[in-house]
Amino acid sequence: MSVSSRSRPLVVLTTGEPAGIGPELALMLAASGEALPATLVAVGDPAMLAERALALGLAVELDVIAPEDEIPAPRPGVLPVWPVPLRVPARAGVLEPANGEYVLETLDVAIAACRDGRAGAMVTAPLHKGAIIDGGRPGFTGHTEYLRDACGVEEVVMMLATDAALHGIAAGGPRCPLRVALATTHLPLREVADAITAERLERVLRILDGDLRRHFGIAAPRIVVCGLNPHAGEDGHLGREELDVIAPTLVRLRRQGLDLAGPLPADTLFTPRHLEGADAVLAMYHDQGLPVLKYAGFGRGANITLGLPIVRTSVDHGTALDLAGQGIADPGSLQIAVTLAAEMASRKG
Amino acid sequence: MSVSSRSRPLVVLTTGEPAGIGPELALMLAASGEALPATLVAVGDPAMLAERALALGLAVELDVIAPEDEIPAPRPGVLPVWPVPLRVPARAGVLEPANGEYVLETLDVAIAACRDGRAGAMVTAPLHKGAIIDGGRPGFTGHTEYLRDACGVEEVVMMLATDAALHGIAAGGPRCPLRVALATTHLPLREVADAITAERLERVLRILDGDLRRHFGIAAPRIVVCGLNPHAGEDGHLGREELDVIAPTLVRLRRQGLDLAGPLPADTLFTPRHLEGADAVLAMYHDQGLPVLKYAGFGRGANITLGLPIVRTSVDHGTALDLAGQGIADPGSLQIAVTLAAEMASRKG
Repeated sequence: MSVSSRSRPLVVLTTGEPAGIGPELALMLAASGEALPATLVAVGDPAMLAERALALGLAVELDVIAPEDEIPAPRPGVLPVWPVPLRVPARAGVLEPANGEYVLETLDVAIAACRDGRAGAMVTAPLHKGAIIDGGRPGFTGHTEYLRDACGVEEVVMMLATDAALHGIAAGGPRCPLRVALATTHLPLREVADAITAERLERVLRILDGDLRRHFGIAAPRIVVCGLNPHAGEDGHLGREELDVIAPTLVRLRRQGLDLAGPLPADTLFTPRHLEGADAVLAMYHDQGLPVLKYAGFGRGANITLGLPIVRTSVDHGTALDLAGQGIADPGSLQIAVTLAAEMASRKG
Repeated sequence: MSVSSRSRPLVVLTTGEPAGIGPELALMLAASGEALPATLVAVGDPAMLAERALALGLAVELDVIAPEDEIPAPRPGVLPVWPVPLRVPARAGVLEPANGEYVLETLDVAIAACRDGRAGAMVTAPLHKGAIIDGGRPGFTGHTEYLRDACGVEEVVMMLATDAALHGIAAGGPRCPLRVALATTHLPLREVADAITAERLERVLRILDGDLRRHFGIAAPRIVVCGLNPHAGEDGHLGREELDVIAPTLVRLRRQGLDLAGPLPADTLFTPRHLEGADAVLAMYHDQGLPVLKYAGFGRGANITLGLPIVRTSVDHGTALDLAGQGIADPGSLQIAVTLAAEMASRKG
């Protein structure tokens, strides 16, 4: 039985699509000997991981551990692995849909460990949606929805976090956490406006507020909310969703104690005047919030799924098939994701 | 007859809504004695400007010049003014729709001077759309459209430019120009997808390419183009506009010699890998491109209208009625807008 101590929680890392950069990022993190606030266990095929380490010249000892056995204390250069077998051999850069089920099984292993308390958090390396769909799961839409369904919750919220210079141009100035949550995620742009309903906004804001308290230790989170339209609709001249949906929802939730600013124009919100004192930004859709976050913290951002009964973070990039197997991918986002997951798991207790 | 020398072109500055911060920004710029690559002339009510300077303790001598007279060489602390009379007295922070026609007259004076060659460029301080609409112009939608119609062109393109740290988190790293042009501007979000037509994209890209050559001295501009949908539609899973409209348009224009990358996901585009070597980004809509630009260069961005027969730049902020008359507004964006206008006018010859 593995132990998740309060000070150094057990974080389960799924190594993701075996043709992508996930396996090598896990190996690079272990090889770097970087001190992490977590005991780490990777989930994946040990032979594939060993082969990738050899090919890249990474000095990592893989310690294959049965799920019922205890995870030893972290040692530099050693990566504990919960084994899941590949369905067919994997080669860097070449998708094999037959391994789609392998990727999902690594997720199942991690989810089970988090749900039954053996692990404090899970971190996911990138998967490839297309490969999983082609592997026989036509309805598959991504990690987040898979976790939502596996945990039996109705709604989850995607949030990205990074350390950012508060003032983009203030080179050398202080950095602070920038967190951007999304009211809608992977929707075609033409479907976004209709998806912004009072019900959805209320659910998303309650999850965001609750998880900022629970997982980030923020007693009274201040959330700054974007409008949907340019200039937040400019009093109805550029769209009415702010007047009809967003503003009334914020008024109602403020009466119930949430600390909400907005709706504000997205292009004035990401400036020191509004970001100072804010704990998170709620963007109405993907490309309203994420370009700023990725620009501000490129390579050092992490994705967090809020609203789950477990803690899950993820890298903020994809499988990068074109870089896989070369050892040139940057493990910076994975390191942030692991650190953040450990911090969240510690707060959860 | 005023002279616009090749080395120091005459730049006409409209002082904008008299209740806003425009007048004081013009005065602050003149008072600062900042060396500008332009001979500057302001357009506005001299008495209002004098009163505002007195109230704010700004040591600026206003030099009222008749339109037919020559503009003297710049002197620190002296602001030449082409006079336009207010319709009713103006007070900082208090809109008077009766002055809407005054604001438009300042524009007409500047446009005429640029069109007949007396001036090399115009820079606009912010106006207040609502005040102009309420003042008797119900169809008024803003500076850009007013200039388009006054110059008799079919289409203009809005571009914002700033000096940005190329890599948001690389505090202390080098800065380079970041330019973001928009395929659509002030449309409700739900109307954006239908507005992205092959015809519009082609017109916008031709204007952008042409004006980067003409006004920015770039021999073969490289333009990086965003997708419309999250992840640029992810091969049609998240929307088909990339496959049906954007990508085919780029293919056609590349064959005609334009250097175009994309369509790329907006949240990976604003990273060094894609920005390095790019001369401009084309975003499909307002909140896809401008939040990054404003974050990257807050207070130091300028707005440029491409596609006009004249050079026009503008500050990247609004009238800020709540700050007006206090002398606390930041003239940084105005300084950038004037500098940029002068550079563009010099290149134009």
